[in-house]
Amino acid sequence: MVKASSKLYAVIGDPIAHSLSPLMQNWMIGQFGLNAVYVAFHIRKPQLEACLQAVRTLEIGGLNVTVPHKEAVLPFVDTKSVDVELLQAANTIKNCNGQLQAHVTDPFGFTESLGDNRDRCNGASVVLFGAGGAARSVCYALSRLKIARLVIGDVVADKARELQSLAINRLNMPDVSLFSPADPNFSDLISDAGIIINTTAVGMHPDTDRAVMSDFSCISKHHFVYDVIYNPQTTRLLQQAKKHGATVQNGLDMLIYQGLESLRIFSGEHLTLSPAQLSELHKIMNRELGIYE
Amino acid sequence: MVKASSKLYAVIGDPIAHSLSPLMQNWMIGQFGLNAVYVAFHIRKPQLEACLQAVRTLEIGGLNVTVPHKEAVLPFVDTKSVDVELLQAANTIKNCNGQLQAHVTDPFGFTESLGDNRDRCNGASVVLFGAGGAARSVCYALSRLKIARLVIGDVVADKARELQSLAINRLNMPDVSLFSPADPNFSDLISDAGIIINTTAVGMHPDTDRAVMSDFSCISKHHFVYDVIYNPQTTRLLQQAKKHGATVQNGLDMLIYQGLESLRIFSGEHLTLSPAQLSELHKIMNRELGIYE
Repeated sequence: MVKASSKLYAVIGDPIAHSLSPLMQNWMIGQFGLNAVYVAFHIRKPQLEACLQAVRTLEIGGLNVTVPHKEAVLPFVDTKSVDVELLQAANTIKNCNGQLQAHVTDPFGFTESLGDNRDRCNGASVVLFGAGGAARSVCYALSRLKIARLVIGDVVADKARELQSLAINRLNMPDVSLFSPADPNFSDLISDAGIIINTTAVGMHPDTDRAVMSDFSCISKHHFVYDVIYNPQTTRLLQQAKKHGATVQNGLDMLIYQGLESLRIFSGEHLTLSPAQLSELHKIMNRELGIYE
Repeated sequence: MVKASSKLYAVIGDPIAHSLSPLMQNWMIGQFGLNAVYVAFHIRKPQLEACLQAVRTLEIGGLNVTVPHKEAVLPFVDTKSVDVELLQAANTIKNCNGQLQAHVTDPFGFTESLGDNRDRCNGASVVLFGAGGAARSVCYALSRLKIARLVIGDVVADKARELQSLAINRLNMPDVSLFSPADPNFSDLISDAGIIINTTAVGMHPDTDRAVMSDFSCISKHHFVYDVIYNPQTTRLLQQAKKHGATVQNGLDMLIYQGLESLRIFSGEHLTLSPAQLSELHKIMNRELGIYE
């Protein structure tokens, strides 16, 4: 039961009404026996500074930040982790006696979500769809996982070039190039890659019949295909990749592990989820998404 | 489970760490199946204006206000109920799309808490110990309950005179006088009264061996003795009054009913507690106070 001594944590974003974070975090808070509760605040861009001031005034213990505020929040925090400085984005703000400390747990979330597939990354050739915020975090994680080659494609060419520049100049990735799905050698690019990652919203509910690719014949059983989307559980990309024998994974574990890492930062406690807990959490979150298994 | 769509309600005060309101309100929220959660914020006087601004920014649905902010909060709200204007104090602020509406539910809490003893008030002679915020609310309730005579005593004579003036001039009470426990006719005053009410903190945990009176021989079975204190459950005043045959009541139900009325205002729903629910809530709250029954 929430008491006077309970800490308050929250997620902010716009929109926020369908965020899974409160459900997920309150379930974890319960599992870990933390004295806290986690809510959502709908914050629009012009209210962002006032929101962080409110966090100080009300002594809210920690804040998760989601789209579209991950970059815009930075001018209003007091300290930034090295990772935040590098990515110029934060998803986690810890309130230490009024000092707001910005962290980013998305790269950790991606890496942790890979589980046994993490070994595939070392020396791999990776095709990355999208060059937005999620792609930046994935890219950062991939740089630490020592992939050999990264090929980035985004419908906005400038964004793709910006991420390429970050990957080469700040993340010191050895081989980073760009692609367009219209390229004549696109099929070869996919065939030659070990890992294909979608970080765009293409295929997300309700546009479930869309995918970042249209010809899946170049996907085979040697591929690992990752989609950061978790609603639907299996996007058209993952469906087709699976049909062609690939190993596939959606973004639910990335969401869970970035959240778990945020909760560790907020609480200062060493928290881990057992496989049974993770499986139960999947059920709860998928049920909330309307996917009854 | 708290979700992204859950409303946030809170109590503010200084100190606030031992407030029973979050425990009580979250239990009621659960019983009524409301989609909300209730927390406590420790707000010091200089942060009061910023706090109300934070309530607007974060779209917090409702705020309870406790000591020492019930009067100080008034300059920062947008509208005040007639009762708030009269008492110049608020304990409940509803956020209607950024418009902060001040209400006061303490008089309702007192009246409702009387239960079957409410009938005793009509035409009664009442001795009131204390002239602070709680006394004002009790006084207002008593004026509506048509008591015949009110005698007010406070160690700070100015406060007693101020409440007397409010009772006569604003509440139109017919017969309002002052007393001092040092008065030679103090025993007669008590003997002649039907109802004795303590609104001071005298006798509250940890000073449980104190009471606003020292000679209880003038209390008999025709008296109704009410103490707004609920920790301990039975103050020395109530212990002694009970010993002399009086009907006694502590302040737990006043706390509960002011909170219930606040929750009605916040939620806009018609909410009632069954006798079984009230009894269960007593157990939960007394357990939290360390009084294991």
